[in-house]
Amino acid sequence: MGLFTKDIATLDDLFVHQLQDVYYAENQITKALPKMIDKATAPELKAGFEQHLRETEGQIARLERVFQMHGQQPKAVTCPAIDGIIKEANEVAGEIADKAVLDAGLIAAAQAVEHYEIARYGTLIAWAKELGREDCASVLSETLAEEKATDDKLTQLAETRANSRAAMATENA
Amino acid sequence: MGLFTKDIATLDDLFVHQLQDVYYAENQITKALPKMIDKATAPELKAGFEQHLRETEGQIARLERVFQMHGQQPKAVTCPAIDGIIKEANEVAGEIADKAVLDAGLIAAAQAVEHYEIARYGTLIAWAKELGREDCASVLSETLAEEKATDDKLTQLAETRANSRAAMATENA
Repeated sequence: MGLFTKDIATLDDLFVHQLQDVYYAENQITKALPKMIDKATAPELKAGFEQHLRETEGQIARLERVFQMHGQQPKAVTCPAIDGIIKEANEVAGEIADKAVLDAGLIAAAQAVEHYEIARYGTLIAWAKELGREDCASVLSETLAEEKATDDKLTQLAETRANSRAAMATENA
Repeated sequence: MGLFTKDIATLDDLFVHQLQDVYYAENQITKALPKMIDKATAPELKAGFEQHLRETEGQIARLERVFQMHGQQPKAVTCPAIDGIIKEANEVAGEIADKAVLDAGLIAAAQAVEHYEIARYGTLIAWAKELGREDCASVLSETLAEEKATDDKLTQLAETRANSRAAMATENA
């Protein structure tokens, strides 16, 4: 991005910029997830993060396909939003002593990441359609469906197990 | 937050920390929205942001009520996530020359903010219930419903008007 010029002239430019932003975000997520896997205690949470890491790698490949379909080289632009979300996740995780409470915090952090992606892919799909790129919209929709499914799984995990374990830790503290 | 101590021992501590994080976020949003109102061109988008500013002020009051119900003084802790989301919104807006394209970018930025809040309030409500604070969960649920409604309104605005105007700007560029 040029800091002193207005580089985004058209919706097409904005679409490409947003693709680059999400490409950066997904790459940062593949770096953050192994640390979250290490920190997680509940086996089902560890397994969930491991599955999401594999999914994220597939989502990066899908973004590269969309870049190519749209006649662009895959490129990342720094995305302060995902950097902030990951920074906050690390800070909060660093503050938590109890393992069950940490699991609850990790799920919350992962859901903030998922919601960021849900917002971005939703926007990308709408713009792709507006630009007549139903083909790109269709590929991006596969990822959006995965992100929503991951968010739902995290909610279920929190509400059926992780939160009650964390609350028990609270009672025993 | 103490940087060298693990201050969050229990789910209750984590709940209070998350309340403080969202309290900071909502306050930052009330500072960001007037700038977004200034930048927006479409009257319905300006009006939507103005309505959301008033809503956000009500959400801050609701958070103060929840702090009080939970025996806590309202307090904000820096939330790198919302700082990053707002920084990114400003950077992208600064790159866009065309007014219709800028409106599309502003809607996308606002939806990233909404989704951050949807994730956080969803988590807060689940934790409040787990802690036996149905009363807090109920107040927080009012805000979650507002955030989801705002996100839906933004989607509708984007898909029915703003994106097609931005695409027309693209064709005329």
